[in-house]
Amino acid sequence: MGEKKYAVGIDFGTESGRAVLVDVSNGEEIATAVHLYADGVIDEKLPGADVKLPPDWALQNPLDYIETFKQTIPTVLEASGVDPEDVIGVGIDFTACTMMPTLADGTPLCACAEWKDNPHSWVKLWKHHAAQPEADKINATARARGETWLPLYGGKISSEWFFSKSLQILDEAPEVYAAADRLIEGADWVIWQLCGAETRNNCTAGYKAIWQKEEGFPSREYFAALDPRMADIVDQKMSRDIRFLGERAGGLTEQAAGWTGLKPGTAVAVANVDAHVTVPAAGVTEPGTMVMIMGTSICHMVMGKERREVEGMCGVVEDGIVPGLYGYEAGQSGVGDIFAWFVDHAVPPEYHAAAKQRGVDLHKLLEEEAARLKVGESGLLALDWWNGNRSVLVDVDLTGLLIGATLATTAPEIYRALIEATAFGTRMIVEAFESNGVAVNELVAAGGLPEKNKLLMQIYSDVTGRPFKIIKSAQGPALGSAMHGAVAAGKAAGGYDSIVEAAQRMGGLKDEMYEPIPENQKVYDKLYADYVTLYDYFGRGENDVMKRLKALRATVLER
Amino acid sequence: MGEKKYAVGIDFGTESGRAVLVDVSNGEEIATAVHLYADGVIDEKLPGADVKLPPDWALQNPLDYIETFKQTIPTVLEASGVDPEDVIGVGIDFTACTMMPTLADGTPLCACAEWKDNPHSWVKLWKHHAAQPEADKINATARARGETWLPLYGGKISSEWFFSKSLQILDEAPEVYAAADRLIEGADWVIWQLCGAETRNNCTAGYKAIWQKEEGFPSREYFAALDPRMADIVDQKMSRDIRFLGERAGGLTEQAAGWTGLKPGTAVAVANVDAHVTVPAAGVTEPGTMVMIMGTSICHMVMGKERREVEGMCGVVEDGIVPGLYGYEAGQSGVGDIFAWFVDHAVPPEYHAAAKQRGVDLHKLLEEEAARLKVGESGLLALDWWNGNRSVLVDVDLTGLLIGATLATTAPEIYRALIEATAFGTRMIVEAFESNGVAVNELVAAGGLPEKNKLLMQIYSDVTGRPFKIIKSAQGPALGSAMHGAVAAGKAAGGYDSIVEAAQRMGGLKDEMYEPIPENQKVYDKLYADYVTLYDYFGRGENDVMKRLKALRATVLER
Repeated sequence: MGEKKYAVGIDFGTESGRAVLVDVSNGEEIATAVHLYADGVIDEKLPGADVKLPPDWALQNPLDYIETFKQTIPTVLEASGVDPEDVIGVGIDFTACTMMPTLADGTPLCACAEWKDNPHSWVKLWKHHAAQPEADKINATARARGETWLPLYGGKISSEWFFSKSLQILDEAPEVYAAADRLIEGADWVIWQLCGAETRNNCTAGYKAIWQKEEGFPSREYFAALDPRMADIVDQKMSRDIRFLGERAGGLTEQAAGWTGLKPGTAVAVANVDAHVTVPAAGVTEPGTMVMIMGTSICHMVMGKERREVEGMCGVVEDGIVPGLYGYEAGQSGVGDIFAWFVDHAVPPEYHAAAKQRGVDLHKLLEEEAARLKVGESGLLALDWWNGNRSVLVDVDLTGLLIGATLATTAPEIYRALIEATAFGTRMIVEAFESNGVAVNELVAAGGLPEKNKLLMQIYSDVTGRPFKIIKSAQGPALGSAMHGAVAAGKAAGGYDSIVEAAQRMGGLKDEMYEPIPENQKVYDKLYADYVTLYDYFGRGENDVMKRLKALRATVLER
Repeated sequence: MGEKKYAVGIDFGTESGRAVLVDVSNGEEIATAVHLYADGVIDEKLPGADVKLPPDWALQNPLDYIETFKQTIPTVLEASGVDPEDVIGVGIDFTACTMMPTLADGTPLCACAEWKDNPHSWVKLWKHHAAQPEADKINATARARGETWLPLYGGKISSEWFFSKSLQILDEAPEVYAAADRLIEGADWVIWQLCGAETRNNCTAGYKAIWQKEEGFPSREYFAALDPRMADIVDQKMSRDIRFLGERAGGLTEQAAGWTGLKPGTAVAVANVDAHVTVPAAGVTEPGTMVMIMGTSICHMVMGKERREVEGMCGVVEDGIVPGLYGYEAGQSGVGDIFAWFVDHAVPPEYHAAAKQRGVDLHKLLEEEAARLKVGESGLLALDWWNGNRSVLVDVDLTGLLIGATLATTAPEIYRALIEATAFGTRMIVEAFESNGVAVNELVAAGGLPEKNKLLMQIYSDVTGRPFKIIKSAQGPALGSAMHGAVAAGKAAGGYDSIVEAAQRMGGLKDEMYEPIPENQKVYDKLYADYVTLYDYFGRGENDVMKRLKALRATVLER
């Protein structure tokens, strides 16, 4: 047993799980291992059965999560040479809402021979989008009853969330619903597997299952109005015993110790969510700094001292990110995936060839070309709704728009206009927070996108008029999870007593920083004014052409 | 001397001149020859001088026109073996307004050593767009004085037209203006070179120089108000002796006979314009049929029995196409060139590779893929303003718009949406005519585009709800010119006494015809309604974002 103490964080992503072993004293990442899920995202047919899935379905296999423990933790232990005795805590983060039905002992229904051929017995991944009718019903019922929790979720519960997915099971497979002793987040399920005790964390409960610290879950009356069979869902299949981020869920079981090579009894933190756990990993534990997890989409996380209602936010949860503060989440549903669409579908061969010749990624090439343009030079403006709009309009039926094209318009010009459009989308969210009393003084980027694209960082800084910094760790979620493991272990064991302390020592930012360039800001202010006009015109009902086009497309395809 | 009689038509295009020798009895095209202009479109620097041209300039060298006579007519005579004695007439058509300053004897100023280094001494090609300030002044002055001719030109005189270009010469090179004994259309100038006598045709005078059969040119007072130095432009540098289409301008001079191999004295018709001459070449000599010359842009030609004012039309001229009828012209400024832009700038390599592998043109491949889509399936809608909008908004500062993009949007879907947008643009023009009492019962296509694209033909028919036919000749303008040559020769010489007769015998349509498919029409009616909403919103001042973006781009580029 050495003097140095370590913690392990495991980040359960969409395609893979990643473990990192970190030095508790300074957050240094000693070793990393990634496990690609064998079944990945299940969206065509069930594994081992000839059952095809309808469109918009996305499932996972919970055994892939167990396999992640088995594959990655022994690897980081071995690679680091760290004595398991010196690993004081384990934390995890997960995609959310990613939920599943299980038996009372935690056995996933999809692992039961009786249920495995029914798609509803599997894990519904966050991006399972087939529960829209259920979400619509949840919202309509809430509006009709004047439920006061609805504004805390931007006025609209998403089809991705817990009760939408639960109601879909009930609607489409009541026998699976009946057989499910528990309905549980994947996040909480893996903690259960590690320490043998079922816990429920306040982060997924708060953001995805409409739980509030003061009010608890929606009322029995509400659930009964939604569907009488669902009246007692919380008491029958969930739990009102909600545990807080950083708490110790339990100690590692003998079985889990066997999987991982860690010592039985090692402290296990309650589960966390990938975006939320990244905030302290960036060293952010105070109001005023917005942490943006930037990838295919953006999650915007910011904290405040009071609970405010902000148009179109995903949710506000007390202690939802850091204890003692209200954690706000908002989001843009299309960012990196819009750039990827563009690169895949709208860039002529000459740029592909040039990128290949220079041995650089096509994004990189386009970024360089786009960086040569002055602000406003392209003459283009876009609405970044290729994948709908989450905040602040909360409308999946909105679509992308490009305006200003001429016979001289080039691919790098469009690429830049798309980046700018996503930056305008972020500014819209920042302004929604600020106009409702939630300060956003500076931005911090995490995730894959910012590292790769300096132009994007500068544009976001110019457009929002705010300094823009970057998280130090390239593995923010896993680091944040390890930090929570250290907090679950506590100071006496060589960890920390609070996530704030852990964040000060283990989290942090790069030295690099982007600051707004005043002359760019001036031009972007003009362009943003036009963005807002188009945003309101197409997004708030004055001209619903996007919805008509989408509905027409759906009708035509159904024929 | 044989029994069969022939006529020669020469079509002076943008990059080349084309002669066709046709059988007068049936319009059969016996021989064709094309001459590529040596100096082509002069838009960077003057030939033989180190004089650079500003943006938006486009000039030609008139010697290229003479060379066209010398190169093409002997070639068609030789290829056909036709005896020059049997060639009874010659006609020409030209781009317009393509104009030039000359000495009193017709010598182009640019052929004078004294003037050749001054860009204003050269031919200003139709697409010379540098006279916008002058056009603005022409329009403002006309509006201020309440000139009644303005509505006959869609409410706006174009920068491309005769007085805009003339005023630019006066503004920027008053010494060239002063030295110009004549300001003349290239069309009329080449006729002058053929028969030694200056004539002015009613088609270019009517459509490009604001001349009307009843009212003549704008008043001396108007020109004086525009610029006192220009008060007498018509009497000093032009002519009030306007000759009508099909009239004999004169007989071929000895010199021109030497150039061409034709007999001296051969009848020469007064000049015509490429789009207008195509109408009788399609056999169309009555109201109700709109002939569309479809290429990079579309010219819409239709005739009526009365003079009506139609929003945004290019012009209405009595006898401007066929004697006894009012010829209307409207236009879309971007059609084929939008498709070309798309193919060059926004189609990913896989489609290029597939086209290459199959040995087909990329347009063809995209057309095939797009043809597999059902109407409305793309979920896309576009405003076809990549090159501004001519009819009905007459606004060069409008730009292209695409709406409805998602992460699943493909290149063939966008390609189809662009074709549909241009079809909606044509429907807008058709409806502008009809709502002002000018019937449009069917469409006829001429030009390069329709031959190549069956999908486009069907879409135009579906969108407009009208039968759509195709001109028989692939060389409509040259054939129409030859027909006018036969009319100039007259029946006694083996030709015709009217263009109506000539059109019946020599012109015509293919058997192929496209008819609207009712179920497509129904969906297109819905899409068109949304097109109109966007058209009005962005095109009529409710949201001038396109102009702001364009102005911003201009400001940024000037810095």
